[in-house]
Amino acid sequence: MEFKGRDIISIKDFSREEINYVFKVAKSMEPLASRGSQMLKGKILATLFYEASTRTRLSFESAMQRLGGSTIGFAEAEIASVKKGENLADTVRTVENYADVIALRHPLEGAARLAAEFSRVPILNGGSGAEEHPTQALLDLYTMVKERGKVDGLKIALAGDLRYGRTVHSLAYALSLYDIELFLVSPETLRMRREVLQTIKERIPVTEKTSLEKIVSLVDVLYVTRIQKERFPDPAEYAKVKGSYRVDLQSLNDAKKDLIIMHPLPRVDEIAAEVDATPYARYFQQVGNGIVVRMALLALILGAVD
Amino acid sequence: MEFKGRDIISIKDFSREEINYVFKVAKSMEPLASRGSQMLKGKILATLFYEASTRTRLSFESAMQRLGGSTIGFAEAEIASVKKGENLADTVRTVENYADVIALRHPLEGAARLAAEFSRVPILNGGSGAEEHPTQALLDLYTMVKERGKVDGLKIALAGDLRYGRTVHSLAYALSLYDIELFLVSPETLRMRREVLQTIKERIPVTEKTSLEKIVSLVDVLYVTRIQKERFPDPAEYAKVKGSYRVDLQSLNDAKKDLIIMHPLPRVDEIAAEVDATPYARYFQQVGNGIVVRMALLALILGAVD
Amino acid sequence: MEFKGRDIISIKDFSREEINYVFKVAKSMEPLASRGSQMLKGKILATLFYEASTRTRLSFESAMQRLGGSTIGFAEAEIASVKKGENLADTVRTVENYADVIALRHPLEGAARLAAEFSRVPILNGGSGAEEHPTQALLDLYTMVKERGKVDGLKIALAGDLRYGRTVHSLAYALSLYDIELFLVSPETLRMRREVLQTIKERIPVTEKTSLEKIVSLVDVLYVTRIQKERFPDPAEYAKVKGSYRVDLQSLNDAKKDLIIMHPLPRVDEIAAEVDATPYARYFQQVGNGIVVRMALLALILGAVD
Repeated sequence: MEFKGRDIISIKDFSREEINYVFKVAKSMEPLASRGSQMLKGKILATLFYEASTRTRLSFESAMQRLGGSTIGFAEAEIASVKKGENLADTVRTVENYADVIALRHPLEGAARLAAEFSRVPILNGGSGAEEHPTQALLDLYTMVKERGKVDGLKIALAGDLRYGRTVHSLAYALSLYDIELFLVSPETLRMRREVLQTIKERIPVTEKTSLEKIVSLVDVLYVTRIQKERFPDPAEYAKVKGSYRVDLQSLNDAKKDLIIMHPLPRVDEIAAEVDATPYARYFQQVGNGIVVRMALLALILGAVD
Repeated sequence: MEFKGRDIISIKDFSREEINYVFKVAKSMEPLASRGSQMLKGKILATLFYEASTRTRLSFESAMQRLGGSTIGFAEAEIASVKKGENLADTVRTVENYADVIALRHPLEGAARLAAEFSRVPILNGGSGAEEHPTQALLDLYTMVKERGKVDGLKIALAGDLRYGRTVHSLAYALSLYDIELFLVSPETLRMRREVLQTIKERIPVTEKTSLEKIVSLVDVLYVTRIQKERFPDPAEYAKVKGSYRVDLQSLNDAKKDLIIMHPLPRVDEIAAEVDATPYARYFQQVGNGIVVRMALLALILGAVD
Repeated sequence: MEFKGRDIISIKDFSREEINYVFKVAKSMEPLASRGSQMLKGKILATLFYEASTRTRLSFESAMQRLGGSTIGFAEAEIASVKKGENLADTVRTVENYADVIALRHPLEGAARLAAEFSRVPILNGGSGAEEHPTQALLDLYTMVKERGKVDGLKIALAGDLRYGRTVHSLAYALSLYDIELFLVSPETLRMRREVLQTIKERIPVTEKTSLEKIVSLVDVLYVTRIQKERFPDPAEYAKVKGSYRVDLQSLNDAKKDLIIMHPLPRVDEIAAEVDATPYARYFQQVGNGIVVRMALLALILGAVD
């Protein structure tokens, strides 16, 4: 397995074997995430975020710094080169001179792939369009493995906005590599995209639902996502579905004892604060797992571990 | 005295003994502020600034880097998680996974306290609402000690906007721990807040004035603050008081020879540029003292000194 | 030659001998640009960018980090101190407490010079007004030396917006120190500024043209610049000249075999993408040369090499 110099563009580029290997390295990063390391001393990560995302950007930067590397970058598109009309290919061929690896967040689908075609240094896709968010999918899977021992055999529900959320697209692909049963719970207008559905249905049993109600008691993992207002063409439609997929203590009455609830964050009110203190809640652990998974990817890609 | 793991939320949480201890450590930081140190190597400071503040943010970041640590963060609220409606508690429970200590600036009173309740890592209050700015109060006191030998026995005037300025609230509390005489000079509508007044009047003699004129010749320390336009509900009221508390060479004619003039900066025109070259001016020294005080706090809180 | 503590404000402050010395140091930096160095460990660079410029800012930050130093700063003027009305002199006297060297980009001519008058730490001019961009001129010259062996004897064309582009002003001054022949190609309304013209015409032969057509086949170096929309008072005027100075494969039919094409970037469409793959293109090499030239300046100014 060769990770050195590799671009991380899509979760679809990963085999189960490769995912397991990343997780093995991520596990070895856990002590380093608190005490630090000098493994990537002298190396620079550029975070090019054409769309603001505090969580993902800070997570990549923290991971790099925990390994002794340093960071440069920008946090939103309101920057000179973009205003001046520079295209992504030129920006990438510029920044490859400044850094050893680039983490890119971009509003357009295909942006990370395009960047990788032009860049001499590896590209880490930090989210492109509504399509892909591979490092999020990896940290989600890593959380399931860590919290439930293994992924095979689990009954998993993805709930909320399955149409516009890039996180659930990448995660659904990743889950389809495992022997699981998947429930997709969303309003009719926010159903999982057809192209994702087709691919995963060839591999695993998938059931679509429009209500959480009868699903909560069935599943081992409940993965909740925000219904993103900014993705709706019509605010009235948003108001109608908002709140329909809310998880609170009452909705968890019949939950399995060892259910885990996950969320890519930020949440608005789709998980009530009262759930945070229950043993079900794992969404803040996901954040911590994001650090070690990104440390593993950085170390692998830059050849500091093999 | 135990500082390791402690939140720095309010100057009211400090005893005189503790302040003295911080200053002792700050003094030991002075050589390190220029030549650097590796005391906090591998540690990460997150600066979460929901309100822009170049001075305070860069000061915290410089202090952390002078000690060999690194920094991540954001410089204003126009960021993804906030736009998406995430609450502060969730942001803090996320960022505690990325950093060993968090410096927070927030427009709401009580924000730093709330953050500390949710965070596993220490919170440094970099200013919350119009209420508290404890690290500024510490560096102001440190400047008085350094420039005047000690604080006890001084006659000190705080002038300008005493109602909306968070700096003067924290500083007034801190000064009330010492044996000083305090003059509060402000327009009627910008008088020191009642709750601050009540507390400090129980401890030290306080005189309120509406003009600097008869005060300048009396005091050892003249602490000037900006009259902040953005705090005024009515621009006409701002125009009326603006300029009434301006310090220039002429206003200093009868000043004591060893008077020191301080200002938390940025200033607009409340201190004339001609004052900068006088031996009274200490406002740029304050900035330098801010570095060593923040280095001391970071080193103490993270257990690098005890 | 003494560089320690020196401000880098204008290319006009450099002798040929000094430029050669900077290039000698830059050459020695080339291996360090990829493997890193700890030469400036513990040192801090502040990047104060009052005008957004991703390229120049990230280049300075990368150069500093490649030498083991760290960075603080802001990326645009929308920051607290500026909003609050602070003047540049105060900002500089503040930030000199936070950093060992300051890189400044400012929209006003003379800003870097003013900053240097007030600052105890060296100022690196990262572009001020339409006047000066000395580090860009140095990296441009370094690229010519590296790609063509030497500058003396070359026929060089500067094309595009010669009136508003700060890059070409600094570069024209620098080139006039060498024994070259210069062609200035621009629309009538965007001719090289009179004061620059006068100075350089005393030293080198200069020919002004309004079309690239007859020039391309004559020259050894074709330096193309963007015609910056934002500099035009009248958009109609922009539309008229836009595109007239475009370089594509066809326009290069009669080019010398060893012609090199340069551009300070970002480009919009003044060089067609089809040119990128030709042996003429050197604009992305310029970016890499910018790193080693800025590494050299930082190391010299901070006394890490002499």
